Amino acid sequence: MTTTPAHSPLVDLRSQRFLLDEVFDLPGLLGLPAFAAHERDDVDAVLEAAHTLATEVFLPQAAEADREEPRFVDGRVLLPESTRAVTRAYAEGGFNAAAAPAEHGGLGLPYTVALAADGLFMGANTAAAGYGLLTRGAAHLLLAHGSAEQIRRYAQPLLAGRFFGTMCLSEPQAGSSLGDIRTRAIPQADGSYRLEGQKMWISSGEHELGETIIHLVLARIEGAPAGTRGISLFAVPRNHVDAEGRVGERNDVQLAGLNHKLGQRGIVNTVLKFGERGACVAELVGQPQQGLAAMFHMMNEARIGVGMGAVMLAYRGYLYSLQYARERLQGRPLDNRDPASKPVPIIEHADVRRLLLRQRALVEGGHALCLYAGSLVDLKAHAATPEARAEAALLLDLLTPIVKAWCADFGVQASDHAIQVLGGYGYTRDYPVEQLWRDNRLNPIHEGTNGIQALDLLARKALAENGAGLRALNQRIESTLGEAAQHPDWIEATVALRMLAQKVGVSAAAVASRLQRGEGALALANASHYLTAAGHLLVGWLWLRQALAAQAALQAGRGDVDFLQGKLQTCRYFLKQELPAAVHAIGLVSSFEDSFFAMRQEWF
Amino acid sequence: MTTTPAHSPLVDLRSQRFLLDEVFDLPGLLGLPAFAAHERDDVDAVLEAAHTLATEVFLPQAAEADREEPRFVDGRVLLPESTRAVTRAYAEGGFNAAAAPAEHGGLGLPYTVALAADGLFMGANTAAAGYGLLTRGAAHLLLAHGSAEQIRRYAQPLLAGRFFGTMCLSEPQAGSSLGDIRTRAIPQADGSYRLEGQKMWISSGEHELGETIIHLVLARIEGAPAGTRGISLFAVPRNHVDAEGRVGERNDVQLAGLNHKLGQRGIVNTVLKFGERGACVAELVGQPQQGLAAMFHMMNEARIGVGMGAVMLAYRGYLYSLQYARERLQGRPLDNRDPASKPVPIIEHADVRRLLLRQRALVEGGHALCLYAGSLVDLKAHAATPEARAEAALLLDLLTPIVKAWCADFGVQASDHAIQVLGGYGYTRDYPVEQLWRDNRLNPIHEGTNGIQALDLLARKALAENGAGLRALNQRIESTLGEAAQHPDWIEATVALRMLAQKVGVSAAAVASRLQRGEGALALANASHYLTAAGHLLVGWLWLRQALAAQAALQAGRGDVDFLQGKLQTCRYFLKQELPAAVHAIGLVSSFEDSFFAMRQEWF
Repeated sequence: MTTTPAHSPLVDLRSQRFLLDEVFDLPGLLGLPAFAAHERDDVDAVLEAAHTLATEVFLPQAAEADREEPRFVDGRVLLPESTRAVTRAYAEGGFNAAAAPAEHGGLGLPYTVALAADGLFMGANTAAAGYGLLTRGAAHLLLAHGSAEQIRRYAQPLLAGRFFGTMCLSEPQAGSSLGDIRTRAIPQADGSYRLEGQKMWISSGEHELGETIIHLVLARIEGAPAGTRGISLFAVPRNHVDAEGRVGERNDVQLAGLNHKLGQRGIVNTVLKFGERGACVAELVGQPQQGLAAMFHMMNEARIGVGMGAVMLAYRGYLYSLQYARERLQGRPLDNRDPASKPVPIIEHADVRRLLLRQRALVEGGHALCLYAGSLVDLKAHAATPEARAEAALLLDLLTPIVKAWCADFGVQASDHAIQVLGGYGYTRDYPVEQLWRDNRLNPIHEGTNGIQALDLLARKALAENGAGLRALNQRIESTLGEAAQHPDWIEATVALRMLAQKVGVSAAAVASRLQRGEGALALANASHYLTAAGHLLVGWLWLRQALAAQAALQAGRGDVDFLQGKLQTCRYFLKQELPAAVHAIGLVSSFEDSFFAMRQEWF
Repeated sequence: MTTTPAHSPLVDLRSQRFLLDEVFDLPGLLGLPAFAAHERDDVDAVLEAAHTLATEVFLPQAAEADREEPRFVDGRVLLPESTRAVTRAYAEGGFNAAAAPAEHGGLGLPYTVALAADGLFMGANTAAAGYGLLTRGAAHLLLAHGSAEQIRRYAQPLLAGRFFGTMCLSEPQAGSSLGDIRTRAIPQADGSYRLEGQKMWISSGEHELGETIIHLVLARIEGAPAGTRGISLFAVPRNHVDAEGRVGERNDVQLAGLNHKLGQRGIVNTVLKFGERGACVAELVGQPQQGLAAMFHMMNEARIGVGMGAVMLAYRGYLYSLQYARERLQGRPLDNRDPASKPVPIIEHADVRRLLLRQRALVEGGHALCLYAGSLVDLKAHAATPEARAEAALLLDLLTPIVKAWCADFGVQASDHAIQVLGGYGYTRDYPVEQLWRDNRLNPIHEGTNGIQALDLLARKALAENGAGLRALNQRIESTLGEAAQHPDWIEATVALRMLAQKVGVSAAAVASRLQRGEGALALANASHYLTAAGHLLVGWLWLRQALAAQAALQAGRGDVDFLQGKLQTCRYFLKQELPAAVHAIGLVSSFEDSFFAMRQEWF
């Protein structure tokens, strides 16, 4: 495969452009004052540069990074030399700072564009991409919550790619339950803190890729209350950084061990000990006991990143299996009984097309969902009116857990199908699809398990401000359905989507009323089904938007006719074959189906 | 975990016994003349011996076999020494010959019992189990189709565990399309043949675990017609075996390479060259050009084995994640807002119970399906009347592709859930669940991809003899529904199952009529959905049988009350939460939904 647009191994470039321009109105976004410095062509140049770097530098290193796992030797982490080359090329390309403001050395691009570029890196080599994305996330958090001094000493070198960043939340006894973390912060006379505790599942927690690592760590200041409201956020440089920004001796942060994973093996995953010698210097970031809210700045960015990463790993598998299915000759059409006739490409077998079309529906649908969430990040910060900014914030809150969990769940399913298309070759390590599947399997777990995302959605986001997020979403869906009603092709689809949207709204209201009656446990039991239904609703809606945009382009004689017909057919597929799963799922929610809720421990 | 019955890491021993005795009437099977030599206690002794061997010898080797992959060195395959110990213990335990007749050194046990034992070995260490199971399958094929001489020289040493067996079907250019195989068989003056060709994906194709390997190879005798009807079957000993059964020099069978897999890494997967030096001696097995039918003797046994293996890998993950969920303390009930209260075992979180109960529904449902298919193997051969034998044969034909594909698909899903229950630990290689998931991923592909199974089901098995297999199944389902109608608890379930059974029957008839009109391609496009629907129907029916048996046991005061309540609740779960997916799937079949069928290549 080459890196020419028609055969990108990472993304259908026609679809990427179609989503940005025809569906999500990137030109409109670039018209906002915040992005006045950028023309549409600049965006193309950035995405092309990202695509070239992703295919030429990230992609060829992916298999090696998987094979040559990080090793723990004499307290150090040894990575393959090629990892350094990849992360350096990323920083030198300016991608750490793509979405940061120009005053901090950034390019000031819309987050939507940075996210689209991230997707290319993650699809090519999710492990290597993780180093840069965590670094950027840490920098963005400090830009939002750090002091001017912290921005200068930490955030700017992070954006420049000289330092690397991490997020340190989980502890061995407290994985998903952040209220139970025990890491202590002891105030010092000079205003700094000493940290003591252990953190687990820390990606990029120790390595020698940059000058130092800035850990962003959740801890509890001595005397703070129990639970999540007692948590504060700290910046902990692995090496001390003096007032002039010079990197000095090591701080008291020790590598306790590595986790050996089934996928994403190229990004080192560590257990870290802070303050084992009582000398771990930490700086408070933001206000005391406001740590979790600040950390969520980074977490939410990471959640959207996980969703995008899951989609793009699956996207690569889809394109690889599509190419394979076009080239691999095997068998004959069912109505051809002549054994002497020539075998056909396996894409001619209906069940192979099913596996391919389902992948396309999931990856292009997921890609649309992620880019839409990206546009909400931009609009939340930069939309023209306060009302538009508030509405974007509401919608973004609602969408974030769905982007993370839905894309991860269905990304793994799509990656599974890529293996199936290749048959025996699919499960051999000479072909990339098995690694894509393994790499993708982390996504339903890390940055908050999908079960946690589902509770966040149904117990908080769907109910916030009396369901204002869902109402805002519903308005937008209704606007699309109104448009679709003018096309006889989509009448059935509008009925199905409207009914589903209503059920998603009504179910949330029913859950809210149960919660008020103190019957929350049963009401929330089916939260995962709720998230699936809401995700299908969103993706179905975005498929319909893609179909309407494709019809408009066809009528206007714009674009590649085959590609646009494919969009229409994939939309039909999603609505016919996938959407009904959401109807079943939301029915379980609204009927408070209790079969696993009522299952007793002792009955297992 | 220990190997005591209550905490088997492989299977819920209460459920195994319940299925054999309360649901499938093993005592009745043992009452058939063919099994007159065996008492019920003998079966317990065999299953206990298998369980002990599986937990004490197979299970501890599983991770090592995964880590220490077979290596290709100087034309030899190097395996870890521990593999030899495991396969030897299996043969010494008499398991190669468990189901073979006493006259050939076998134990003459019902196949149902041998299959239950196989399941324990495959769940413990699917790779190591493969060596013995292929060997037994080769022996059974030779008992059915070989000459007396072949039985003596090959089958008996295979049953004794001195030789190992393989099945050689696929070639590099012909994976699933057996009609395209090119391996040639050249008749010799002495009645033997010389083979020339290459075979791919050959498990256990080269190693030094026994005295020699007997390859069962599909090839085309020179001048035979193209396609599947020109295929003959040959026995090709890796080393010549003389008339007295002595193993001599190597035959002309060369190892060309190994496939490096993502799972089941402990069983070597080879590319073999036959007759590179023109000296590969082969013996015809059975009649010329009847090779595929003979090979299907082994293939069908292997397909049921794959289904059982998929279930049992998933079973181990289920039990492991269940134990973990009972022990891991994390978080609090949703209605407990006191952060100072103690964390609870994660099984108390509803979404964790969902992941556990879905696993249980799939693995115990799949286990029932496999054991039911096993009982049909016994009844096909040994039922009291010719009518009963013919009906068992019909049902077995219908069920075989479903057992293979449904169990593989949903086994992988269950293995996925086991990872999710463990969270981050689930994706680290210090815990067994990630390997179980990888091992299981081969099952939807090997021994005929699931897509091929679906076509076999819908184009052949469901339509054979005007749908006689489906009618026989439907009668049995109706008999259960009649029984269930006396229990008010199950009225809704009987309605749902009856409707689904009708649709499964009607859809097959509709497909048959389209086929007659020459519209087969569209009619068969949704074959995979048909298989899912038929599998859910079968498993739903068998869950209802389990529930009725559990209610009977509860009323009679027999058995473990908690266990039986769990059976009832799991049945409720399956019928409420899983069965509706089948209703959607069969609707796509019966409406000839054509969205992927109509998708054109150029639209991708």
